Amino acid sequence: MEIVKNRYAVREYDDRKVPEETVRQLLDMIRYAPSAINLQPWKIKVVSDRATQEALCSATPAFNQPQVRTCSHLLVLCADTDYPAIIDRYDKALIAREVPAEMRSFVTGLASDFVAGMTPQEQLQWSREQVHIALGNALNGAYALGLGACPMTAFDPAEYSRILNLPSTIVPTVLVSVGYPADEPPAPKLRYSLEQILF
Amino acid sequence: MEIVKNRYAVREYDDRKVPEETVRQLLDMIRYAPSAINLQPWKIKVVSDRATQEALCSATPAFNQPQVRTCSHLLVLCADTDYPAIIDRYDKALIAREVPAEMRSFVTGLASDFVAGMTPQEQLQWSREQVHIALGNALNGAYALGLGACPMTAFDPAEYSRILNLPSTIVPTVLVSVGYPADEPPAPKLRYSLEQILF
Repeated sequence: MEIVKNRYAVREYDDRKVPEETVRQLLDMIRYAPSAINLQPWKIKVVSDRATQEALCSATPAFNQPQVRTCSHLLVLCADTDYPAIIDRYDKALIAREVPAEMRSFVTGLASDFVAGMTPQEQLQWSREQVHIALGNALNGAYALGLGACPMTAFDPAEYSRILNLPSTIVPTVLVSVGYPADEPPAPKLRYSLEQILF
Repeated sequence: MEIVKNRYAVREYDDRKVPEETVRQLLDMIRYAPSAINLQPWKIKVVSDRATQEALCSATPAFNQPQVRTCSHLLVLCADTDYPAIIDRYDKALIAREVPAEMRSFVTGLASDFVAGMTPQEQLQWSREQVHIALGNALNGAYALGLGACPMTAFDPAEYSRILNLPSTIVPTVLVSVGYPADEPPAPKLRYSLEQILF
């Protein structure tokens, strides 16, 4: 409760770089996120060199969000839509765990059937939804580690793909700037009451 | 880290009902979730009477998931697509906070323009993505409160809408069963290594 209540979108960072060990802990928290059928359809690009951050910042025009270049690390959370590879990876992981063949083919068959029932556009949307679960872990996790983070969806995915040289199956979905906060939370948080959400 | 590492999809629950006060704490953690432009495009239906749970369970055929009827509380996390109402609610909340008119119209104008640029299908997808951020808070939050929870997406949304008598703008997106765990975690968690996720 303390984490979800007090974290906020940190837009100003001081100049310190977050140690790689701490970044790794944050990435660990992200990768522990659950996903439907446990397919983990996400990839993460970590950007921490100023030149790339500058280039990406100019592809984030909507709100001229300076945190893309001023943060310590920028996480580009991407939807992975390469489902043949995703299912093959799952199968290999089950083999490595010595899951019985029958159970293994049940699980991967389920996943294959589910994916086959979707259009490519629906597959992308489905991956994007899962990425948003991981996003929550990124934002809560950053706060828990004493860091600040800000989610951003207003950017040009095609430009990001070009600058980061992404294959077409990897679709940038949401950005998370990470660093040490140098601003104050805009208290109190504007959230609707339970009465406005329940029905 | 302890939360994200140790929570798991709890499929068996004991018979105890979770106290309403604890359910309310969980709902509070869910409503604190962030969302793009802070629009909070979600609604939650809490179901805890056995008759409705039984009816819903028969509309959750894919894996015959008994936790829909055996859990203490079933949370139906829904995407809210009534954007005129969402933006109007935002405007009223900003007025209540005495946000200056100029800033207020900037923010609501931004939201309106953004929503107007999407097809109804894209608006639904966008709301669904935000719901998945809230879902993460639900799953991590349940564990933090000593509860167990299981996310489910394999259900018939049209049947859920009919049984719960939902308006067409409220779209059931993901279910979360909540209760006291009566099973054991399937240790260790199957998650891909950072090397498999980073690129």
